[in-house]
Amino acid sequence: MQSDIILFGAKGDLSARKLIPSLYHLHYCKLLDTSIRIACIARTDESKEAFTETLKSKVQPQVAEGYWSDTVWDEFCERMTYICINFTEQEEYKQLSLWINPERLSLFYLATPPSLYGTISENLKQANCLEGKRRVVLEKPIGEDLSSSRDVNTTVARFFNEENIYRIDHYLGKETVQNLLVLRFANRFINAQWDQSCIDHIQITVAETVGIENRWTYYDGVGQLRDMVQNHLMQLLSLVAMEPPLAVDAESIRNEKVKVLKALRPITEDTVDDHVVRGQYSQGWGTGGAVPGYLQEEGCINKHSDTETFIAIKAYIDNWRWAGVPFYLRTGKRLPQKVTEIVISYKALPYNIFSEGANTPNKLVIRLQPNEGIEMQMLSKKQTLKDRLALTTQNLNLDFLGTSGTMGRIPDAYERLFLDAISGDQSLFVSREEVEESWRWCDGLIEACRRQGIHVKKYHAGSWGPSKSELLIEKDNRSWNA
Amino acid sequence: MQSDIILFGAKGDLSARKLIPSLYHLHYCKLLDTSIRIACIARTDESKEAFTETLKSKVQPQVAEGYWSDTVWDEFCERMTYICINFTEQEEYKQLSLWINPERLSLFYLATPPSLYGTISENLKQANCLEGKRRVVLEKPIGEDLSSSRDVNTTVARFFNEENIYRIDHYLGKETVQNLLVLRFANRFINAQWDQSCIDHIQITVAETVGIENRWTYYDGVGQLRDMVQNHLMQLLSLVAMEPPLAVDAESIRNEKVKVLKALRPITEDTVDDHVVRGQYSQGWGTGGAVPGYLQEEGCINKHSDTETFIAIKAYIDNWRWAGVPFYLRTGKRLPQKVTEIVISYKALPYNIFSEGANTPNKLVIRLQPNEGIEMQMLSKKQTLKDRLALTTQNLNLDFLGTSGTMGRIPDAYERLFLDAISGDQSLFVSREEVEESWRWCDGLIEACRRQGIHVKKYHAGSWGPSKSELLIEKDNRSWNA
Repeated sequence: MQSDIILFGAKGDLSARKLIPSLYHLHYCKLLDTSIRIACIARTDESKEAFTETLKSKVQPQVAEGYWSDTVWDEFCERMTYICINFTEQEEYKQLSLWINPERLSLFYLATPPSLYGTISENLKQANCLEGKRRVVLEKPIGEDLSSSRDVNTTVARFFNEENIYRIDHYLGKETVQNLLVLRFANRFINAQWDQSCIDHIQITVAETVGIENRWTYYDGVGQLRDMVQNHLMQLLSLVAMEPPLAVDAESIRNEKVKVLKALRPITEDTVDDHVVRGQYSQGWGTGGAVPGYLQEEGCINKHSDTETFIAIKAYIDNWRWAGVPFYLRTGKRLPQKVTEIVISYKALPYNIFSEGANTPNKLVIRLQPNEGIEMQMLSKKQTLKDRLALTTQNLNLDFLGTSGTMGRIPDAYERLFLDAISGDQSLFVSREEVEESWRWCDGLIEACRRQGIHVKKYHAGSWGPSKSELLIEKDNRSWNA
Repeated sequence: MQSDIILFGAKGDLSARKLIPSLYHLHYCKLLDTSIRIACIARTDESKEAFTETLKSKVQPQVAEGYWSDTVWDEFCERMTYICINFTEQEEYKQLSLWINPERLSLFYLATPPSLYGTISENLKQANCLEGKRRVVLEKPIGEDLSSSRDVNTTVARFFNEENIYRIDHYLGKETVQNLLVLRFANRFINAQWDQSCIDHIQITVAETVGIENRWTYYDGVGQLRDMVQNHLMQLLSLVAMEPPLAVDAESIRNEKVKVLKALRPITEDTVDDHVVRGQYSQGWGTGGAVPGYLQEEGCINKHSDTETFIAIKAYIDNWRWAGVPFYLRTGKRLPQKVTEIVISYKALPYNIFSEGANTPNKLVIRLQPNEGIEMQMLSKKQTLKDRLALTTQNLNLDFLGTSGTMGRIPDAYERLFLDAISGDQSLFVSREEVEESWRWCDGLIEACRRQGIHVKKYHAGSWGPSKSELLIEKDNRSWNA
C-alpha cells in the first residue's frame, strides 16, 4: 500500500532538527518509497516555496557530511505539500481532507504539544481524514504522571486502535539499542551470563552537559525524573533486563518489557532515603566557561524551586533473573560529559591467583553516546619482559563506525523509526502499558520523596552531581563507571 | 647471585637465528644483568673475533627494526668468550673449567643433538664444572618415544636435579600463550564458560607452509606426530584444558598440565580409524611456485616412505570439565598458510529468535601466528536500514601489537625463556612427567595406526591436507576454522 506522511508541527524545532533531516537522508539513500508524499502542516500562512526555503537553511547543517545535494533536496521537496492549519480550527482541516487519499496509508506525525493530541485527532475525525488505514505517531511526554498519561492515552484511543499508535522514544531507534537485542539473544556467550549468578550490578547513565536551555518554566514543572527517567532510562532498563522474547516482533518484545517494569520494586517512604538522591545544579563550569546555577537561569520565576536537575536511583527488579542485583540509574544536566551508557559489571573472580591487579571485574560497556559502540573490559597480560605476569586492563571493541562499511555513517534514530512506522512494525515504539507501568513506578518514587522530604542537594555545574550520589553506590562497595 | 650462560652449539642454526638474537635484544633493552657472561662453545677452532664477525652477519637480519646498533653489538660481544671444544673430548673441557666460577650460577644451554646430552653432562662433571649452582637448558626432542625419552631424562638426571633441568618448548614463551593463562584465570567472564556445559569443541591448528627443508633423512625417521604433536600441540592442549592452578608457580601449573595429559583418552586399534588421519604431501604449490612432493624432495632415500607430514586427530579428555568435548588437532607441512591458532567454539544458542544468520556460534580465537592476538567472534546487528534486523559476524579484538605501547614489538619466546631460566622460574618449561605422559599417549596412537594399517593419504602441497581430514570433523557436523 502506498503511504503519506502528515506532519503536524512542521515548522517546529523537532521537525527542523530531526524529522525532516531524517526523511531527507532516507530519500537520499533511496530508502523512502518513491510514492510517499509528505504533507507539512503548521500554523503560519506561507507558500510552499517560502516554507521549504526556510526549512532548507535549517536542515542543511543537520545533514551528514557528503550527503547534501541541492538537486536531491529539490527532488525531495517535490514530495512535499505545505498546508496551513490552525490545529484547533476544525474548519481548516478540510484542505487536508482534500489532499488525503482514503486508498493510501496516512501516517499522522504529531510533533506538537501532547495537549493537542486529542484536539487534532478529533478534528481529523470530523474532517473524515481517519477513514481507511491510519496510523498516528506521538512524541513524548505522554502525560506527566500515571493519571494524566491515562487521559492522553484514552483520548487518542478514541480515534486510533493501540496497534495504530506509535509512541516514540527515540532512544529505541539508536543502532546500539537495537544491537543490544542481538548482543543478548544471538550470542550464547553473552546470553549465558546475563543473570544474578554472573552479574554483580548494572549501571545506566544518561549525562547531559547542557542546562535547561531557555525552558525554565516548562522544565521546572517536570524535572529530570519525569523528563528522562520515566521514558529513556526505563526503556533502556527494560531492554537490558527483559527475558528472551518469543520472537522478535512487537508484541513479544513489548510484553517482556512490561514484565520488567511490573517487577520493579516500588521505592517507598521507608526505602527512599537509601535509594534516591535528587540534585540541582548551582553555578559552575560548562563547556563554554562559567555557567549560572539553575535558580539563576534566565526565566527562573521561583527562587526556591525544589525541582531536580539530577537524580540517582538504586533500583531492584524482583524476579528470578535479577534477584539481588542493583540497577544504579543516574541522569542529570550540567554534568562534565555528554555520555549515555549501560555498564554491565560482572562478578569478581571467586579466587585470585595473580599477585597484582587481577581484582578488576569484567565489564561490558554499551555506549550510546558519544561514540556508539560495545566494549568488553578484560584483563590481559601486560606485554613486558620486566614483570613476570603483570596484568593490565584491555578492551575488546565492537566499534560501529569502524566496521560499518556499507553506510559510513550511523543513521539517526528517527530514520529507523520512520521506516518502521511506515512498514507497520511497532517493536521500537512504546506500548500504552509500558508508559503507564513506568509512570506508576515513578509516581510512587515521587510520592515517597515528597513524604520523606527528600529535597534536592546542590551540585556545581560541571561536576558529577551531589556527593551523596557517590555515596549511594559507594556504600555498597561499588563505584560509578565514569 | 651472578650468572653465566654457557652455550653449547654456539655456531649452530638455532643459536644464530634465535638464541643469540634473543640475548642481544635483552642486552639492548637492558634486561640482561650487566654481570652476565656468555661462553660460546663450538667445535671450530677459531678466534673470538672470527666467531663474532661471522655471528654478527647472521644475527643482524634477525634483529627487530630499530633495535640494531653496531655499538651495542660490540658492547654485547664484550660479555662473550669463545671456547673451542669437541664435545666428546673430555680433556678439552678443562679450558671451560678454568672459565667457570663456582661462586656464580652456570646456565648450560645445550643447543645440540639430544644424543650428546649425556656425553656433555658427563664431561662437565668430570671437569668439575658442575660444582655449585648449576642449571641445564635442553632443546627438543627429548627422545622419540616413551622409552628413549626416559633414557634421555634418566641420563640427564644423573647430573642435574629435576628442579635444575629446563626443557624448552618455545611455544610456551610466546606472549599469547602466557596470556592464555591470564585470559582464563583473571577473567571471570571467560572462566565461567570454560567447560563442557558451554563449549562445543576446541580446535588446535599448527599449519606450516614449509616442506621438510633439506632434512629428509632426519624427518623421515620422525614424522609430524613426533615432531609437532608430542610437544607443541600437547602443550597448547594442556594449557587450554588445565584446571585452575593453586598458584601461578611452576609446580602448580605443571601439575595441572600433567593431569590433562593423563586424562587424554587413549586412541586404540578400535578407535584409531575414526580419530586419526595421516597425510603426506605430493607435488603442488608453495609460496614460491611449484614444489615437489615429499617423495620427490632432495635427499629422499625411500620412495615408499609412509612417514606422515600431516596429521589430524580427534581427541577426548576424560574428566569432569571436558567430558564429551572433542579436541580437534591438526598440523602439517606444505599447507596453504602459516598459522597457529586455538579456536574455542561455544555451543549454539538453545533457540534462535532471529530469522537470518543467527546460527553462527560464538568463537574465541587465540592466534599465535601470524599476528599474535585474541579475538572473539560475535553476532551483531548489521548496520543497515534496509533489513529490519539482519545479523553479521563481528570480531572483538585484543590485538597485541596495536595496544602494546611500552614495547612496540612482541618479544621472541626465547627472550622470556632466557630470563626465566636465569631467574629460576620453571613455569614455562616442560617437566619430565609431562614429556613422558605425552609420549605415552602418542606411542599408543602410533601403535594403533600401525596395527590398523592407517597409512598416509596423499594431499597436494598447498592444500589443507587429505580430504579425509575434512571428513574427520564434518561427520560430527563441524568444520575446521581456517
